[in-house]
Amino acid sequence: MNITLLDTTLRDGALTEDINLSIPDKLRLASLIDSLGVTYLEGGWPQVFESDLEFFEQAAELDLKAKLTVFGATRRPETRVDRDANLRLMLAASTPVVHLYGKVWTLHVEKVLRTTRKENLAMLRDSVEFMKSHGKEVIFTAEHFFDGLRTDPGYALENIQVALEAGADVLSLGDSNGGALPWEIEAGVKQVLQMAGGRPVGLHLHDDLGMALGNALAGVHAGATHVQGTVNGYGARTGITDLTTLLPILKLKMGQEVVSDEQLARLTRVAHQVAEIVGLGGEMAYKPVVGDKVFAHKTQTHVSAVLSDPEAYETIDPERVGNRRKLLIPGLTRPTYLQEIARRYGVDLSGDSVANARILEVLRKLEEQGYTFEDAEASLELRLGYLSGRFQPILEVERLRLFQVIRGRTQSVVEAALRARVDGRAEYVAAEGEGPIDTLYRVILEALSVVENLDYRSYMQNVLVSAFRVRTLSSGGEDLRVRVSISMHDGQREWTTVGIDSDLIRAAWLALVDGVEYGLLTRRRPDPDAGAAISSPS
Amino acid sequence: MNITLLDTTLRDGALTEDINLSIPDKLRLASLIDSLGVTYLEGGWPQVFESDLEFFEQAAELDLKAKLTVFGATRRPETRVDRDANLRLMLAASTPVVHLYGKVWTLHVEKVLRTTRKENLAMLRDSVEFMKSHGKEVIFTAEHFFDGLRTDPGYALENIQVALEAGADVLSLGDSNGGALPWEIEAGVKQVLQMAGGRPVGLHLHDDLGMALGNALAGVHAGATHVQGTVNGYGARTGITDLTTLLPILKLKMGQEVVSDEQLARLTRVAHQVAEIVGLGGEMAYKPVVGDKVFAHKTQTHVSAVLSDPEAYETIDPERVGNRRKLLIPGLTRPTYLQEIARRYGVDLSGDSVANARILEVLRKLEEQGYTFEDAEASLELRLGYLSGRFQPILEVERLRLFQVIRGRTQSVVEAALRARVDGRAEYVAAEGEGPIDTLYRVILEALSVVENLDYRSYMQNVLVSAFRVRTLSSGGEDLRVRVSISMHDGQREWTTVGIDSDLIRAAWLALVDGVEYGLLTRRRPDPDAGAAISSPS
Repeated sequence: MNITLLDTTLRDGALTEDINLSIPDKLRLASLIDSLGVTYLEGGWPQVFESDLEFFEQAAELDLKAKLTVFGATRRPETRVDRDANLRLMLAASTPVVHLYGKVWTLHVEKVLRTTRKENLAMLRDSVEFMKSHGKEVIFTAEHFFDGLRTDPGYALENIQVALEAGADVLSLGDSNGGALPWEIEAGVKQVLQMAGGRPVGLHLHDDLGMALGNALAGVHAGATHVQGTVNGYGARTGITDLTTLLPILKLKMGQEVVSDEQLARLTRVAHQVAEIVGLGGEMAYKPVVGDKVFAHKTQTHVSAVLSDPEAYETIDPERVGNRRKLLIPGLTRPTYLQEIARRYGVDLSGDSVANARILEVLRKLEEQGYTFEDAEASLELRLGYLSGRFQPILEVERLRLFQVIRGRTQSVVEAALRARVDGRAEYVAAEGEGPIDTLYRVILEALSVVENLDYRSYMQNVLVSAFRVRTLSSGGEDLRVRVSISMHDGQREWTTVGIDSDLIRAAWLALVDGVEYGLLTRRRPDPDAGAAISSPS
Repeated sequence: MNITLLDTTLRDGALTEDINLSIPDKLRLASLIDSLGVTYLEGGWPQVFESDLEFFEQAAELDLKAKLTVFGATRRPETRVDRDANLRLMLAASTPVVHLYGKVWTLHVEKVLRTTRKENLAMLRDSVEFMKSHGKEVIFTAEHFFDGLRTDPGYALENIQVALEAGADVLSLGDSNGGALPWEIEAGVKQVLQMAGGRPVGLHLHDDLGMALGNALAGVHAGATHVQGTVNGYGARTGITDLTTLLPILKLKMGQEVVSDEQLARLTRVAHQVAEIVGLGGEMAYKPVVGDKVFAHKTQTHVSAVLSDPEAYETIDPERVGNRRKLLIPGLTRPTYLQEIARRYGVDLSGDSVANARILEVLRKLEEQGYTFEDAEASLELRLGYLSGRFQPILEVERLRLFQVIRGRTQSVVEAALRARVDGRAEYVAAEGEGPIDTLYRVILEALSVVENLDYRSYMQNVLVSAFRVRTLSSGGEDLRVRVSISMHDGQREWTTVGIDSDLIRAAWLALVDGVEYGLLTRRRPDPDAGAAISSPS
């Protein structure tokens, strides 16, 4: 069995409500997805998005390994095939492969196309023959095949017969509403396989009920050898079969060598890069296989088991798909786990000293307060550094005053005054800004800039707050706890810090102070030896 | 076939990395989930979270329809069953049902439990018999059953045999690493069914490969009649079977009357409310069935087809699951949708009047700013009420000053001064509180209490802020938008309002003002006629 995969992130993926791709976006995506080793790369649907032709023109120069494929409908009713605007646009894409779709469910033929069943069959036959006569490899997707099979199987299968006779190279069966169940997929695939005379039978499956992956596996199990999908499962409505789960299952669980080990090991990275490019990076946390949480173990029960043998709670080795294990600090109340984390930051907590016991105690208390550091390791490193004496705090806050005026429903002025010791020297500074967070950040910068350490000032000029996230940990009356995490970027690297408090301004303040401290304490300083070497070349 | 569902949102769901639930959170979730009609409601795992016992105590008073269930392991190795700390904690929960799990995969028995296969079987037998002798209904989950079946089927099935002999009422098969494929599930279920002598066989399936739903369907197809899942699929790592997809598939596609039509129609709302309570409201967009995009149609091709017949691209009727259609062509059908919502609140926007056009315009602008009202309908009702003239605002804010002092790293004093018109009368009041939110709320109460309307004062005395949630809608530099939602309760009813702003204090302020206004404007006033009837009985 030799399974071919068609990636349609650039076509069906582009139908996702929040995705709007520019041509440069599409070119970057094409290269990334190509690196995963898919067989076909579907680049666009020129009938709907005319700029797709421009993409095809530029993509031809990318030297992709996958076969570029253009998507479009069979000819219009009562139109001569060689004069059909859509088919001409498809030819203009100059791809080796064309992916034609046609209606095979009578509801669509009658209510949407508003043509006769007979004309619909002629449209299919003409279009496939036309594309074959232009030397194209033709993938035909029977849209709504499974709905057709349920309501008028004779007609659905007649379409398949026509596509075969006209010379389609791949017969793909669509569950276009995402409503089929696995046993229907299995039955449909088996029926078409009997007719197909060895030609590959494939699947294009939507996820409206969450079954796009399960149905793909049912189909492959029944003998389908072509699957269409997208990176992260993007696609119209809730998307289609997700290649980031299908690929590892095919290769690691079913022994299908669809891609190489190296290609598979890129999977997590490509999935996240694609997500960032399409603007859906925030949706990756809980994804199977490539998500941030899939190898994240939380309770002590699970963490100890994984430390005994990762297989105890991991069905695949994270490295095979380029992901990594995370042992979460909450619930890690045993010193050994904290020791392991500390070691990653160069702090040895394995000894039985009083100092070590104190560090463990402090971390345990933070944990009790609800601190989790998994996405804010800078705060953890900072705590460990202070506690072990490796870092000396720069900013010691004595008093912060924040003053905000809101007029009517929207206007706002915010001012802050800060009394702090900066490198041990007392300072009193003020700042104003455009909201509490902006103002708090400005007042910290102000405090740093009055200090004689020019290096702080010049370093902070390159730092930007790149992300700000607020999340309620627990709500309801007195239990309120808010978690604020803040990311900063200095042009070279990004780090994230966290503050948790019942007061959201204090939580933000803790995260901001941590962020600035971390940036300054771990920045790369000009190397004095290197300077010396240049100034005295003798 | 009579399928029972066990919801474990409060137990397995609570193992989700970002979920940390307080007892009030858990009680609210329990009532919400109960309204969906699940058979069992698993409330906690006291061995790991001791505070779960407190939840069970309070939950007993909720009058839930579902059977409360406690979760825990079989007894420890080499321990007398009646002295096992965990089993005693489970009994202390005083639930009618206990859910025991045991190891049946030899890897876990040997490497994680570090006991003998024989002792592991004794642990299982003793624990089930012990719970049966205490009159409990016992669900036994064979953890890692499918991994066991793959590597040492004899031992895995021996465990099942022991559980049966000891009297387990439900035999649930775990795919605890989420690595099984549907045909393995099918084979396992069939084998156990042959042994089970009519007792229900169930499934507990993880989603590490994205197959928790597909595998559940394969299992039910093979004869399983008990499925465990969570709302939105929360659970350890990437979660477990999602009841928000399983329920509609069972009922609408497989004809299983697992829940009533009314219960199913609550599905989307409950899913979103649960998501907001656990702090994962941001993860709902692209979910099948209950997500915001599942009935969202984007291209002209799809939109026209849906306008001809919704079935053309919708596999279920959105209303059956309480969801709604969205046609994403601007200007095409937005007004109709808003009209539909407005009608629910007694506002008729169907006419072509200038007033109606203005209301639609305001709502459209709010939508553009990112307002979504699903879990905060009080804010929407309030907007509609103001715009249509049905409500007159009580509180008109002229100027709010907020003043906060933070000393050292934790202490904080907050003061607020408010200049506002209350029922048209100018007032200037001040208040202090324990954090910005508390203080903002107090200053509103203060403004209301100086007004001569005694009714405001006495009504607000019974109102509590029952929940406060913050979520970042977009982060990164200038794009920051924060969504604050606040729930209030007056002893009779709860309502939720929302504020969105780039400044999180302003967002909270908007939500708080809405909350108080809504409470006052829609409160039940003493019925003057009823009063008259009593005072003049003639």
